[in-house]
Amino acid sequence: MTDAPASSPTILLLFGATGDLAQRYLFPSLLRLHADCLLPAGLRIRGLALSAHDDAGFAGLLREKLAQAAPDAQAAAIDGLLQRIDYRSVDLSDPAAVAASVADVADQACLSYLSIPPGLYPSTAQGLAQAGALAAPSRLMLEKPIGSDGASADALLTQIATLIEEQRTYRIDHYLGKAAVQNLMALRFGNTLLEAVWNRNYIESVHILVAESGGVDGRSAYYARAGALRDMIQSHILQLLALVAMEPPTSLEADRIRDEKVKVLRSLRPLDPRNAAPLTLRARYAAGHIDGQPVPGYQPPEGTEPETFAAITAHIDNWRWAGVPFHLVTGKRLPRRSTQVVITLKPVSHWLFDSPARGQAQPNHITLQLQPQENIELGLLSSLAGPEWGALQLEPLQLELSVPTGQQRRIAYERLLLDALAGNNALFVRADEVRAAWAWTDSVLAAWQQAGLVMGSYPAGSWGPARAAQFLPPLLAAQARP
Amino acid sequence: MTDAPASSPTILLLFGATGDLAQRYLFPSLLRLHADCLLPAGLRIRGLALSAHDDAGFAGLLREKLAQAAPDAQAAAIDGLLQRIDYRSVDLSDPAAVAASVADVADQACLSYLSIPPGLYPSTAQGLAQAGALAAPSRLMLEKPIGSDGASADALLTQIATLIEEQRTYRIDHYLGKAAVQNLMALRFGNTLLEAVWNRNYIESVHILVAESGGVDGRSAYYARAGALRDMIQSHILQLLALVAMEPPTSLEADRIRDEKVKVLRSLRPLDPRNAAPLTLRARYAAGHIDGQPVPGYQPPEGTEPETFAAITAHIDNWRWAGVPFHLVTGKRLPRRSTQVVITLKPVSHWLFDSPARGQAQPNHITLQLQPQENIELGLLSSLAGPEWGALQLEPLQLELSVPTGQQRRIAYERLLLDALAGNNALFVRADEVRAAWAWTDSVLAAWQQAGLVMGSYPAGSWGPARAAQFLPPLLAAQARP
Repeated sequence: MTDAPASSPTILLLFGATGDLAQRYLFPSLLRLHADCLLPAGLRIRGLALSAHDDAGFAGLLREKLAQAAPDAQAAAIDGLLQRIDYRSVDLSDPAAVAASVADVADQACLSYLSIPPGLYPSTAQGLAQAGALAAPSRLMLEKPIGSDGASADALLTQIATLIEEQRTYRIDHYLGKAAVQNLMALRFGNTLLEAVWNRNYIESVHILVAESGGVDGRSAYYARAGALRDMIQSHILQLLALVAMEPPTSLEADRIRDEKVKVLRSLRPLDPRNAAPLTLRARYAAGHIDGQPVPGYQPPEGTEPETFAAITAHIDNWRWAGVPFHLVTGKRLPRRSTQVVITLKPVSHWLFDSPARGQAQPNHITLQLQPQENIELGLLSSLAGPEWGALQLEPLQLELSVPTGQQRRIAYERLLLDALAGNNALFVRADEVRAAWAWTDSVLAAWQQAGLVMGSYPAGSWGPARAAQFLPPLLAAQARP
Repeated sequence: MTDAPASSPTILLLFGATGDLAQRYLFPSLLRLHADCLLPAGLRIRGLALSAHDDAGFAGLLREKLAQAAPDAQAAAIDGLLQRIDYRSVDLSDPAAVAASVADVADQACLSYLSIPPGLYPSTAQGLAQAGALAAPSRLMLEKPIGSDGASADALLTQIATLIEEQRTYRIDHYLGKAAVQNLMALRFGNTLLEAVWNRNYIESVHILVAESGGVDGRSAYYARAGALRDMIQSHILQLLALVAMEPPTSLEADRIRDEKVKVLRSLRPLDPRNAAPLTLRARYAAGHIDGQPVPGYQPPEGTEPETFAAITAHIDNWRWAGVPFHLVTGKRLPRRSTQVVITLKPVSHWLFDSPARGQAQPNHITLQLQPQENIELGLLSSLAGPEWGALQLEPLQLELSVPTGQQRRIAYERLLLDALAGNNALFVRADEVRAAWAWTDSVLAAWQQAGLVMGSYPAGSWGPARAAQFLPPLLAAQARP
């Protein structure tokens, strides 16, 4: 549902304004939107955080950070953005303080963006509600994670739902803001050629990989409690899975898309503890090398046992996907950063060609690359015409489906900010999706525990433990094998 | 069936050696094959024609023509080719003279290439047979046309069949030598993605167009009797249709491919005279302009009524293609030279996007271009990501499936000569294919006559009469409409 333009926010309340996400992504995104005249003309922006700054002090800090984050920005654009911004220091654990910090603007149409630790969501939202800043048509944007398991997520969702209705709640999964994700929808639903094969009859397997070369580093307190399954698979990877696997919606209206996504998430087969060993893999990186540099292993705080690598072969129990494995893989300290969805088609049913021999012929695949670059690639076989008929050979041909270079692409946060300002929540995660994603994730956590799955180990800079090849996309699996 | 290498021809007898095809295509092709060391080391070549030359005189003539046709050729390569060549002057209407002209080499494995008027095929073949030059393992290559209707083709095929068996007879359709045609087979049978949609459920229509900008010119005596239907559709266009429409063969063996092609040709629905008016178009060009230059109309000799433009919507009555129209179009003096096969997929069943609006969205298509360039193009729709979700737009994306530039391609005659030398007749037309193609063509000729179809007219440089748009590929039809 799209709100009427008349209800457009007139002020953006950015909680966590001094934090890493705000400084590195959100303000630079706002700067680019401002520079391109895409922000509503009268939109004001208020930064809120614990740090004591006055408006000028915050502006000075921000100017410095923007110069680093957006070195090409025009000085006039930075000035223009800063003129929209003021700042309030506030203790977010105190609802009354939150209410006071927005009292002067709470009668406006507010867009509150919570870029803060999830533990502070309840008190902050309560304060906003007390001040009246969540009343219609105001909107609330929340970063992930929502909860750490099904029960805690349900509690948080229920609590927030008493303060603001679902339709005005925008839960971010920034992967949904990536242009390649929208291009996937365009390709699937705009092309007979692709939709025709998008089912169990033609698709052999789906791989979804989020590989990071970085380690746990800074936010290790959160990570030590979460681990890779909760941090990556429950959110980003299940969202990608839902988009790849959903039935065609009847329209592109936000709730018609999310209706289809939640159906997929609810159709995920809970992990049976007896399958925990064959169908999953859980490991933590030890010391190793990345790009030739030695890298230390990860020592989680005592009493925590987070995995930094998780792989699961999931199944979707519905008509379209019965029998098609979805291999979900994520890991830190892998050889390189790469997020990709790989759809591998079944091999042709009868192989006619001498070369490559049947077993060596790469089956058709569609690769949706989200990081480091965003593009979509179609892998076909084409003839490498020899001089004679008898020498007819096939060779792989990679077709880039990227939008032509030179055309401007918005980074994910720019698009998501614009969509929230415009009142379009198609690319935001609905409460029932969060619940369904946790329900399946809980089954994995429980199966791991019941099966007593042993934590594996892998050297930093490798593609995970030896058995990871079973879960990795075919081209990477070939590299990963010892 | 591929002959054993031991039976490779040791001499190529090129009848019609002073003719246009031989001078412009065959000898230059032999030169390139020689230069690339692809001709068998000991292969001799004898040119035969009516003109009186001695060996040296023919060599001088050929050297001059090769310098024009292959200006980049190395002098050493030309010398090397000429050392393989001798020449005999012979009256091809006299079998005894033909026999005498090859008597000294008739005990060798001969490859006789008849690049001569079809009226001379019987006498020449008889002479060759008398001399023993058609005995196994010798081979015979024939240019099109084979006959001018079913009856005359049958008579010729039967006559030649008494002299040499089918397996050693190589009937040329030089379109089959084009690399794009082999690439079509590679794409169809090497890729699940394409074979999955290659049927009536997903394909809306097929267009096969052979457009020429040239006029009737030189060979008008032949053309005046033949017309566009016999000259182009019966041969090249039906061969392309057979390759596009055939069932997957069980192997790439020559007769397994030709078995499938002939099944398609036999499944062509004969034209009902009542459908001659709605489903066909027949016209002759009048004066007009091409590239801004005035061009005269075509005045055929008295007593002849050849069409220079023919369009037919054909149907293949089998399970795969029931209900899918195959639009076959050819014409002379059209705006530009273009040979293309266009597979248009059905539109997606439910259109989700605002832009382009449903009616304006180009459905997926696969275009096989044979002239002026050889390539294959895949037309999809991709997202033109606007800044917001609501602005999601789709735009056409053309993917080139051509083999990477820089990779060497053989022109059609090079490949066909090599294949005939190697004894592989996969890319040559079998007698039953010729008969089946004529059977359908005869039905069109008969329907035209019975229906009294009026000969239309079009100005040179146009895409044919106004109604031609009904038969042209969608992108051209848009240009053709007044």
